[in-house]
Amino acid sequence: MNDLNSLMKNRRSIRSYTNERIPVDVTNKVISAAYFAPSAARRYGFDIVVVEDSLLKDQIKTICEQGERTWVHSRPNEVKDSILQLPGFSFQKNFLTDAPVLLIITTNPNHPNIPYPIESCWLAIAYMILEIENSGLGTLTYTPSICLTNRRHELNEVLKIPIDDHIQVILPMGYYDVKLEHKESHVERKVHHNTYGTPYFK
Amino acid sequence: MNDLNSLMKNRRSIRSYTNERIPVDVTNKVISAAYFAPSAARRYGFDIVVVEDSLLKDQIKTICEQGERTWVHSRPNEVKDSILQLPGFSFQKNFLTDAPVLLIITTNPNHPNIPYPIESCWLAIAYMILEIENSGLGTLTYTPSICLTNRRHELNEVLKIPIDDHIQVILPMGYYDVKLEHKESHVERKVHHNTYGTPYFK
Repeated sequence: MNDLNSLMKNRRSIRSYTNERIPVDVTNKVISAAYFAPSAARRYGFDIVVVEDSLLKDQIKTICEQGERTWVHSRPNEVKDSILQLPGFSFQKNFLTDAPVLLIITTNPNHPNIPYPIESCWLAIAYMILEIENSGLGTLTYTPSICLTNRRHELNEVLKIPIDDHIQVILPMGYYDVKLEHKESHVERKVHHNTYGTPYFK
Repeated sequence: MNDLNSLMKNRRSIRSYTNERIPVDVTNKVISAAYFAPSAARRYGFDIVVVEDSLLKDQIKTICEQGERTWVHSRPNEVKDSILQLPGFSFQKNFLTDAPVLLIITTNPNHPNIPYPIESCWLAIAYMILEIENSGLGTLTYTPSICLTNRRHELNEVLKIPIDDHIQVILPMGYYDVKLEHKESHVERKVHHNTYGTPYFK
């Protein structure tokens, strides 16, 4: 398969979705991709909540927007400024209600019998992101900042998620009209040969 | 691209490698895949050490094997037993010297200006794993247990990795003779509809 590389390269974060519905077998294919990812001790120590209900999406949007305003304004000034200047950043999270499906991935990072829960989760999230792209849909790797605070229970309560489970990501999923071009990353200096500090790319 | 799904599905962890060399452009393609992954605030807050040196691989193997014996034997009995019964588990880590290339991915989980370092790292690791599979090579998501202990500096020192950077994974990469069949995961109960506890798959 030669075009895995172009599939990876052409993926961009999508923040604006059309209201076109997603066929259920497409959603199911994205979900099944999560379970093809490697998972520590084959435990698949994460849950997926598939949100399609409009009222729930409204509530999620309100909580995420309020939580993010509070969190960002509590940061030191230089951190706050750097967040506000991120490409595409806005306190308005319209993608949470525009996208027909939200995939919410949770894990209990302190579970005594699940090794590497965060790591396994994010391998599965990468698989889902690629399957979304492969299906001609868009997504965004949205990490609600309210989940970094002591108000994270608000999202859990709306979704009835056990409080020990932490929301890792909300992946809005939908069709879109506009996608930006591929953007080069220049990170060759972060690749080392044999020992750290010896450039791999001469 | 229809076969992303079968690429994902057919990947299996590989623990035994042939001594066939890997063309440099294949290694470079795998490295470049890491930088196509989404990364929080586009920071790519990880480093990759590409180890090909035989003496270094010997040292890594010795440290990982000793560290794992110590770590496993320090676990409570029931945890120790479950580790020893994991499919493919052995204290011998021959893959660390047999595989022609080891890709070691590190990040500083406490860096003040890199958001979500672990999460971004593991998205990149998933991309590399898929590009390795796509190149007809095998890998294993190997997380050295010595990195969970206060002896993790031993690996960092051999590789000259700054002590604030934590090794997340060692991906051995190489050709192989034997690969197991796809193994089904039965995790439908972990997919919920709208709210947690309502099964998505009826």
